Parts: sequence; C-alpha cells; structure tokens
Amino acid sequence: MQVVRTIAEMRTLRQQLDGAIGFVPTMGYLHRGHLALVERARSEDQFVIVSIYVNPLQFAAGEDLTAYPRDPNRDRELLRQENADIVFIPSDSEMYPTGFSTWVDVEHITERLEGASRPGHFRGVATVVAKLFNIVRPCRAYFGQKDAQQVLIIKRMVADLNMGIEIAVVPTVRESDGLALSSRNLYLSPEERRAAAVLFRALTLARELRADGKRDADTIRNQMKALIDKEPLARVDYVSVADARTLDELRTIDRTTLASLAVWIGKTRLIDNMSLE
Amino acid sequence: MQVVRTIAEMRTLRQQLDGAIGFVPTMGYLHRGHLALVERARSEDQFVIVSIYVNPLQFAAGEDLTAYPRDPNRDRELLRQENADIVFIPSDSEMYPTGFSTWVDVEHITERLEGASRPGHFRGVATVVAKLFNIVRPCRAYFGQKDAQQVLIIKRMVADLNMGIEIAVVPTVRESDGLALSSRNLYLSPEERRAAAVLFRALTLARELRADGKRDADTIRNQMKALIDKEPLARVDYVSVADARTLDELRTIDRTTLASLAVWIGKTRLIDNMSLE
Repeated sequence: MQVVRTIAEMRTLRQQLDGAIGFVPTMGYLHRGHLALVERARSEDQFVIVSIYVNPLQFAAGEDLTAYPRDPNRDRELLRQENADIVFIPSDSEMYPTGFSTWVDVEHITERLEGASRPGHFRGVATVVAKLFNIVRPCRAYFGQKDAQQVLIIKRMVADLNMGIEIAVVPTVRESDGLALSSRNLYLSPEERRAAAVLFRALTLARELRADGKRDADTIRNQMKALIDKEPLARVDYVSVADARTLDELRTIDRTTLASLAVWIGKTRLIDNMSLE
Repeated sequence: MQVVRTIAEMRTLRQQLDGAIGFVPTMGYLHRGHLALVERARSEDQFVIVSIYVNPLQFAAGEDLTAYPRDPNRDRELLRQENADIVFIPSDSEMYPTGFSTWVDVEHITERLEGASRPGHFRGVATVVAKLFNIVRPCRAYFGQKDAQQVLIIKRMVADLNMGIEIAVVPTVRESDGLALSSRNLYLSPEERRAAAVLFRALTLARELRADGKRDADTIRNQMKALIDKEPLARVDYVSVADARTLDELRTIDRTTLASLAVWIGKTRLIDNMSLE
C-alpha cells in the first residue's frame, strides 16, 4: 500500500494504473462503516484508493474542526489490512493554497436538513469531492447511506457537471443497539452513548408506523419527536419525512420516502436516516 | 471530421482517442480569432476537438442570447478546412436537463469588470467550461486573450479544482484598424463599425502613455475615457488599469498591468484589452 501526500505524486501514480479504480473519500478516524466502503470497492474494482482529509471548508466557525478525531497511523494500518492500494493524505496547503477561490455549489437540495442546520457545509463537501475526483479520477466512488443527503448532492453534482463517475451507496453500518457508526460517537460519554440509540429507535418507529399504514407525515414526525423528547440527554435538531429524491418535506406519504433526523446528544450532534418503504 | 451532438457519443469517441487532445470551446459564428485557436491546437495536439454551444447560463435576462448570431453550417465548413477532428454541438437539453442545479463559482476575480457589468456571467462561463472539460477531457484548452478576464477565471478554476488541463492563451486577432474580432461586431452598422475602432485607439493611447513613463493609473484612465468620449457613437461602460493577475484596480503602475475596457457602440457592447508592458 502506498501512502501519498502530494497531488503531483497522486497524479503520477494514477497515470500508471490501467484498470477500474474505486475511490473512498474519508475524513479518517476510520470505523467499520468506512471499512465497508473499502471492502465493497475491493470486491468491485481493480485498484482501491482511499483519501483521508479533514476538509476545513465543510466546517463552519464554531463547529468541531479542530476537535475532529484523528489517528492517521491507525487508519493506515486498517487500510493495509483491507488491501487498499493507495492512501492519499493531502495537507491543507496542498488542497487549498493561497488564492484558492473556486466553489462548487449545488442548489436547492443543499438548503434543507443538514444544509439548513449547517450553512455552507455542502458547498465545502461538493468542492472537496470535486477536487478529489479530479485528482484521483476514479471509475466509481463509494459513499455511506448514513449521509443520505450528501449522497444525493454528490450524485447531482456528478450528473450536472458530467463527471462520468459512478456513485455507489453502501448501507449504514450499525452497533448492536442500532446506533449508526460515526467518528463523532467518540465524543459520547457512556451515558450519552446509551441515550444515542434513541435516533435508531425513532427511525424504527417511523418505519413501523408506515408499515401499519400511516400516511400522514406530520403524525409520524410528531411521534418521532415525542419519542426523542422522552430521552433526557437528547434534543431534536430536525426530524424529516421527505421525498427520498428531492428531500422536499411530505404532507402525505405517496412516494419513496426517507425519514431522517439530527439530534443533539449532550454537545454531540448525530444524524441518521432510514428509508420508509 | 465528425460532428457529435450527444454527450454519450462524445464520451465514446473520446475514449477511442489515444494521444494529446486540444480543445477549443466556442459559441460558434466563427471568425479568424476562433480559427487562430484551432490552428494553434492543430499545431500542438494530436487531436483537435471544437465545441459550438451558445451557453444560456452566461447570458443575463435582457442580454443578447436569442439574438446571438448562429451559422452552424458555415462553422462546420470552416472547421473542416482547419482539419478539426471532432465538432461537438450539444443541445440545451443535453447540457441542462430538467433538475440541473450545480454551479461552479470563482470568487473575487469574477466580481470586477465584466463580472460587475454582467452579474452571473462568469458563473455561467465557469459552469459550462467545467462541464465541457469533463465531457471532452482535453490535455490543453485554448482561449483568446481578447477575453482576458475569462482566461484568468478559467485558469483559477482549473488550478483550484485540480482539473489538470493546460490553458493556452492565444493573442487577440484584429482588423486592420485594430478592432478586435468578435461575433458581436456583426451587430454594428457601417458607421458604428468605424466608430468601434475607438476601443483599440484608447488602449494604444494607454500603452503610449505608459511607454512615456506615466505611472499614475487615473491619468491613464481619464485620458482613455476622454478619447472615447470624443466619439459620438461610443459610450464608456468601464475603463480599467489593473493588476494583470488579480484585476485589482491600480493607483500607481508598479507591476504587470492590463488595460481593459467595455464600450457601448450604439446598442452593441464591445470589450478589449491590452497589456501595458
């Protein structure tokens, strides 16, 4: 496995690869959710490239950029075990040299849910992913369903800008109590960790209500909120029952629907989502 | 020479090309300025691809989108004579299908000069050029120095988004009285056509003043404006004496400087520029 730190070296190596390239962009501090992406790439592509980069552009002032957990040595060892071919770990000055001033902006779908709670977040995400795609030039790129809105935005960007990259979506990996794996779970105290299972329980409730034939979206949202409100350590940021393609909030469930939510557990903000089939 | 109208066909053809690809994006209605770009590509690259697309995104409401001159048959014949390999002529529905919502935004340098006079113009330019670059995947792309600000913006975008494409800049082609070739010159009546030479005369004056040792930028701007004001059919939109890299207006000429201007000749808005060495 080669560890690459400059864009120039990454380009040179890339030119030598002749075959399908799978790419997994990450912010590091890898967990089994990331590794599921790498394993999927390993099973589908001839070469697997993983990037580790905590992208400052997608953190707003006051968010957890500096606190965001990092463990590059452990990450490299995990990726070696997964037989990744190349790990790309650029520095901030490689990615955003002085004078940097170009942004990729996806409209509409970026304004809801995470975009509403975190202004500028998806502009940062789209911009860094466009850069990484241009540097790595993969055939396929792998993203987790846990960041459902991010997946929709990346797919939109790839289609709109004709990037010619296949976006593969990998199911959310969960702990035994249903908590979706996230690098931010590290922030949770043992008590908070137990409380955090409320996100999965609320999503499961939504799915059960839908399975019982409930079609009124407000009823489902309200019951999800009521369930979360019963957990003293949890505070709802948003609860959404929306069109799974556009993320427009629904009044009546009459199409493919995604339930999603963001919940503060103490000082940690967690997100999750589930399809309501 | 192959004429290609769909993105899918363009991609398929592109994959079959093994060698350096030069790309000339145009809005058609080709003149000798465009052909100079094609000739330069022909001399440097193994394959030459030219696109013809009047990009609606770079025209504001009230601008000359519908009036913009078009003559695809003549364009194709000219490109055949120049031995272009592929002409890519996509439709609006190919380029911007329903739901399109991604923009490439270059900040700062887009806000001055043409960007100030034509809000949203460069956002449209950067977006379509990013799309075309992704579809054509050239090694080199050719732009005319006449659109000096556009050149700086495209270079910035390519660097910032790591597109890995060389941007080649070709000198402005001029009529015998100095008027820069432009598809919009077609709009001029014979009287206006004579008046339009005032842009070149003003730029030449700026260069002479600089050669005489003048370093005060306001003096140069004012003398350029005074010269244009003497032409009854001309009306200044802007006159700029700016840092040639950033387009920041200068007070004193102490670095590489670009004089540029936009002038209304009747209902036609023309632009031009000249380096003040």
